Amino acid sequence: MAESTNMRLRLPLLCIILEVILIVLFGTLVEYNDDTDAKLWNENRNHSATRNDHENEFYYRYPSFQDVHVMIFVGFGFLMTFLQRYGFSSVGFNFLIAAFSLQWATLMQGFFHGLHHGKIHVGVTSMINADFCTGSVLISFGAVLGKTSPVQLLVMAIFEVTLFAVNEFILLSIFGANDAGGSMTIHTFGAYFGLMVTRVLYRPNLDKSKHRNSSVYHSDLFAMIGTIYLWMFWPSFNSAITNYGDPQHRTAMNTYYSLAACTLATFAFSALVNPEGKLDMVHIQNAALAGGVAVGTAGEMMLTAFGSMIVGFLAGTISVLGYKYLTPVLESKLKIQDTCGIHNLHGMPGVLGAVVGSVTAALASPEVYGHGLQRVFADVETGKWNPQSKGGFQAISLAVTLGMALFGGLITGLILKLPIYGAPPDTQCFEDGLYWEKYCEYGTLMDVGLLTTKIGGGMFGLI
Amino acid sequence: MAESTNMRLRLPLLCIILEVILIVLFGTLVEYNDDTDAKLWNENRNHSATRNDHENEFYYRYPSFQDVHVMIFVGFGFLMTFLQRYGFSSVGFNFLIAAFSLQWATLMQGFFHGLHHGKIHVGVTSMINADFCTGSVLISFGAVLGKTSPVQLLVMAIFEVTLFAVNEFILLSIFGANDAGGSMTIHTFGAYFGLMVTRVLYRPNLDKSKHRNSSVYHSDLFAMIGTIYLWMFWPSFNSAITNYGDPQHRTAMNTYYSLAACTLATFAFSALVNPEGKLDMVHIQNAALAGGVAVGTAGEMMLTAFGSMIVGFLAGTISVLGYKYLTPVLESKLKIQDTCGIHNLHGMPGVLGAVVGSVTAALASPEVYGHGLQRVFADVETGKWNPQSKGGFQAISLAVTLGMALFGGLITGLILKLPIYGAPPDTQCFEDGLYWEKYCEYGTLMDVGLLTTKIGGGMFGLI
Amino acid sequence: MAESTNMRLRLPLLCIILEVILIVLFGTLVEYNDDTDAKLWNENRNHSATRNDHENEFYYRYPSFQDVHVMIFVGFGFLMTFLQRYGFSSVGFNFLIAAFSLQWATLMQGFFHGLHHGKIHVGVTSMINADFCTGSVLISFGAVLGKTSPVQLLVMAIFEVTLFAVNEFILLSIFGANDAGGSMTIHTFGAYFGLMVTRVLYRPNLDKSKHRNSSVYHSDLFAMIGTIYLWMFWPSFNSAITNYGDPQHRTAMNTYYSLAACTLATFAFSALVNPEGKLDMVHIQNAALAGGVAVGTAGEMMLTAFGSMIVGFLAGTISVLGYKYLTPVLESKLKIQDTCGIHNLHGMPGVLGAVVGSVTAALASPEVYGHGLQRVFADVETGKWNPQSKGGFQAISLAVTLGMALFGGLITGLILKLPIYGAPPDTQCFEDGLYWEKYCEYGTLMDVGLLTTKIGGGMFGLI
Repeated sequence: MAESTNMRLRLPLLCIILEVILIVLFGTLVEYNDDTDAKLWNENRNHSATRNDHENEFYYRYPSFQDVHVMIFVGFGFLMTFLQRYGFSSVGFNFLIAAFSLQWATLMQGFFHGLHHGKIHVGVTSMINADFCTGSVLISFGAVLGKTSPVQLLVMAIFEVTLFAVNEFILLSIFGANDAGGSMTIHTFGAYFGLMVTRVLYRPNLDKSKHRNSSVYHSDLFAMIGTIYLWMFWPSFNSAITNYGDPQHRTAMNTYYSLAACTLATFAFSALVNPEGKLDMVHIQNAALAGGVAVGTAGEMMLTAFGSMIVGFLAGTISVLGYKYLTPVLESKLKIQDTCGIHNLHGMPGVLGAVVGSVTAALASPEVYGHGLQRVFADVETGKWNPQSKGGFQAISLAVTLGMALFGGLITGLILKLPIYGAPPDTQCFEDGLYWEKYCEYGTLMDVGLLTTKIGGGMFGLI
Repeated sequence: MAESTNMRLRLPLLCIILEVILIVLFGTLVEYNDDTDAKLWNENRNHSATRNDHENEFYYRYPSFQDVHVMIFVGFGFLMTFLQRYGFSSVGFNFLIAAFSLQWATLMQGFFHGLHHGKIHVGVTSMINADFCTGSVLISFGAVLGKTSPVQLLVMAIFEVTLFAVNEFILLSIFGANDAGGSMTIHTFGAYFGLMVTRVLYRPNLDKSKHRNSSVYHSDLFAMIGTIYLWMFWPSFNSAITNYGDPQHRTAMNTYYSLAACTLATFAFSALVNPEGKLDMVHIQNAALAGGVAVGTAGEMMLTAFGSMIVGFLAGTISVLGYKYLTPVLESKLKIQDTCGIHNLHGMPGVLGAVVGSVTAALASPEVYGHGLQRVFADVETGKWNPQSKGGFQAISLAVTLGMALFGGLITGLILKLPIYGAPPDTQCFEDGLYWEKYCEYGTLMDVGLLTTKIGGGMFGLI
Repeated sequence: MAESTNMRLRLPLLCIILEVILIVLFGTLVEYNDDTDAKLWNENRNHSATRNDHENEFYYRYPSFQDVHVMIFVGFGFLMTFLQRYGFSSVGFNFLIAAFSLQWATLMQGFFHGLHHGKIHVGVTSMINADFCTGSVLISFGAVLGKTSPVQLLVMAIFEVTLFAVNEFILLSIFGANDAGGSMTIHTFGAYFGLMVTRVLYRPNLDKSKHRNSSVYHSDLFAMIGTIYLWMFWPSFNSAITNYGDPQHRTAMNTYYSLAACTLATFAFSALVNPEGKLDMVHIQNAALAGGVAVGTAGEMMLTAFGSMIVGFLAGTISVLGYKYLTPVLESKLKIQDTCGIHNLHGMPGVLGAVVGSVTAALASPEVYGHGLQRVFADVETGKWNPQSKGGFQAISLAVTLGMALFGGLITGLILKLPIYGAPPDTQCFEDGLYWEKYCEYGTLMDVGLLTTKIGGGMFGLI
């Protein structure tokens, strides 16, 4: 509490220094790729009799990119506005760290995904990948929501994006693993990284802010905007970087059915675990999305609509049960304070998704996939593919991801514990007033002498 | 009132049983179609010199699908949040019954649209059709909003989806009717089905809940999110399953102009019917959308921008006048309690759309359509087409739809009247507290002793 | 104040007359273009061996159109809901004037862009252009927000759309200027037009309404919905009407990076200019978007990601500084009351964008663009192109735009000053109660005797 939370110098300096570094690195390392460069695209186009502008990858990836973009900024941003006094910070800090992470991810992923004569090539596919990596950071943000300053969040993003790129490189490039929708690389990694960070940052006296660690009526409706957008666009998310043609089409459809089944499971178990049979907004807002996470690996495979629905139903069920029974235990026994319950939405469903992916890959056969086999499993073409070893590499990928996430979260958590970032005191967690200029001092609402309350460092009209 | 509204067993059991049935039926009946199956797509692709991955229907239907998906989940869901204490239920139950209906519709429509060796083939087009059918159920939901339990809504959806598929089969497959945007199949059917259900469920003492049957300031703003998304994406809705090329392009544009003209009519008449010239949010939220409904049949035809604007202007006008003068009469004289006024938004504009479609079809000629004639009217190719009989079949389609809707609504309403579904008592209609876990008991807001009020079974913070 | 604000006749009459005029003009002047007309499309298609339905411009422009459409109706509409008592009017009047403007713009732009045998041809590209022109009107709306009646706004739209089309014609058709994302035609024009209108309509006693000219907690969250949608879809906006292929792809990507860098600058300077280091919602809501404005001209050129980030960073910086230091001066010294601060979001960044475009064009060379040069700079093909004169024409375009905007705004402002439009009195600015029917008189909220306050002509529940 003796530590100052004043951000006047720390936040601007960090933002400016980071952006200057990014600009310098982009200036020296980043180039347009073949589909975005005026010269290259038109050279290639002229050399090919059949290739025309309509075949630019823009037309096949950009609609998916925009759906993913909405999930990152509206989906994650508004999902976290459920807290009664932390709406500005939820959507605002989500905005800030996403805008930073997508730039930093472009560099880190470009570096590991393969340089072209020492340069990173960018286009719509790298934009999708950067947004994916950003999603992982935002998942971790959910665990520490309300308890960390924006400076801490930016520092966390620096480390998490870097480790994400390393882990993704190991999985996709070394193990040749399949993970188009990121059950492992995005969800499992983001969840366990964030859980470890929040464990290290454990606050024994967080109770002092518990009156703000809950929702009010309209904050829950704002959060539903986030939920519904995530739910609707998840088919685009999982299919955004699969191969063209049947894999992309199939992935979107599998995700659609998984989510639908997950939603029924969520409503069922939400009512069942409540003594009065009432539904809990926390479950609806979060667990209904677990079906998207759980088909993030197997969605591009021949999982069938039927298989997708079973996976979705399971995911919704374990997610609700996790919120009800596991989250309190994690906090009381393991000292893991998980504000948004990311373990239930991204952690367990991510692991489930990895297991489903491993099993589905091990069951793949040329009889079922025909000539499509090599379009789903890239190593078929090199002749190295066999279903059992493929399934094994998928399983090993999960283990590596868990290890990287927990180790990375531990180191990052320790760094974030340094008393230099302006973290909020225990009494001022989940409070916008600490970071946002006050409003409404002269508003009508105050004139009538109602509806305002003095809190934190700010005076807020409550509507 | 003696009847228990506790949903602890009824809702979970129904959800789980329904999902298990769906999973079993999907497992035995549903297969990937030619564009989603790994084997089939790649076989077909290899047999064709010109076909490539870029021609997978995914790239031509999926953006439309996502727009429709947003309308179903955000559009309908938030449009109904206008009630002051029913926001959770509006967006939540919309979510639940839509997630169920789209799965059930896949089966029902697949069955009637034609099996392939006893199997239902699914892909992005079936996803759009399932979302369309879901839209019809959500329209009916608007009539009974606030007066029915989620168990009742799921039961209603089971019957309505089934009858929708039968009616759609009769219109499209037997009569060869045109109805790409569903003026008849979706809007007219959904509206009159819902109106009949609410008639059968008439509550003479609904006045006891009338203090909750209205909006507050921010609930109206949430509802505008729904309105605006429906308005923006309606061009995608009407054009989502038309033929490729000029029909899809033209349908989207006709809808765009119809909606624009409708909006001006809505503002004009909303001010005109008010003694002080003030605008009514109910009109803006709903009547401004009637223009999309009213070109749902003729939109793919050569209606012209000019014709679309006339239709849109008329639709907006009758919709506002309906809200002002007809809805009160329907309630007092015909005992139809129509919470959202679906008769004004979907009922009358749907009938108008059917009539406009019939007239426009009867006026079609090879001179105007050229070789495009058979792309709009499928039966041109079989030689059976002539404009007058075509127009006649369109008119008969309307009559059949009205009959099916009213009959189906009657039966369904009687089934829903059974006292086993935990329907809310007359004093507790339009009240989230009955179904949703309370919040905010320990919130800051209560600490200051303001801003909360004990209502129903729950304690809600009012913000 | 003696003047009546009753809109019962004025608003309906104006809306109906305008719509009737539009319908008559559309009926006599507007035709489907080659891609939307059943006859023309199918004739052209049959004459070409390679052209098929998939090449209809619909599939390459419509996703961009829908993103732009969302920006116009949700983006602009909700961005302006930040005022505590003007949410209905912000989103509602935005809806009204946009629905009118897009129809009127279709005619005006069609007239100037070139008639086809005396007819205006419409399709998805004209829809995008009409939405663009509408955006310009909505920018001006931001300057006069809260101080003008809907009748005034419609009259303003009539004149502004017309002048927009003239200015656009001069820039694009006479000067051959590049301005795909409209730094000049849309942002600079809309901003300085609006600033001049609000200058002419200067209200010395606006202080009487200043208690309503501010936000409250949830109104700021609604505004963030607008902000985030504008931010996410700006890449689609800037690239919506560029040439197919690399230019469209590149424009989207440049905008993406510019916005990301702009966001970091916005957070940095927002904290830096506040004594306590707190962030200001006004900055986050607005200045974070300036990066999209500032690459509206150069975005389609080979600006590079690196260049885009520098431009974005500068734009965010000047925008925040403008809000903090310039806006108060404009009001006190120049009597420009700019409700939304459009000078900071659209004015200065628009001018910056024009300058960047001019410089980037002057630096263009065949070495960098290869065969792509003529796809960015149309006059290369005619042999008239040279980079210096191109850069010069870009600069002249900015000057012409400023002149047209200021002159047009002056004339329009004078017309709007006539006391016949039902403008709000100084004491009733920023007040929904003047135009919108009251709600909640019988609501629960009033029953508990809290939460309501009598204001203006209406009784509003405050939630």
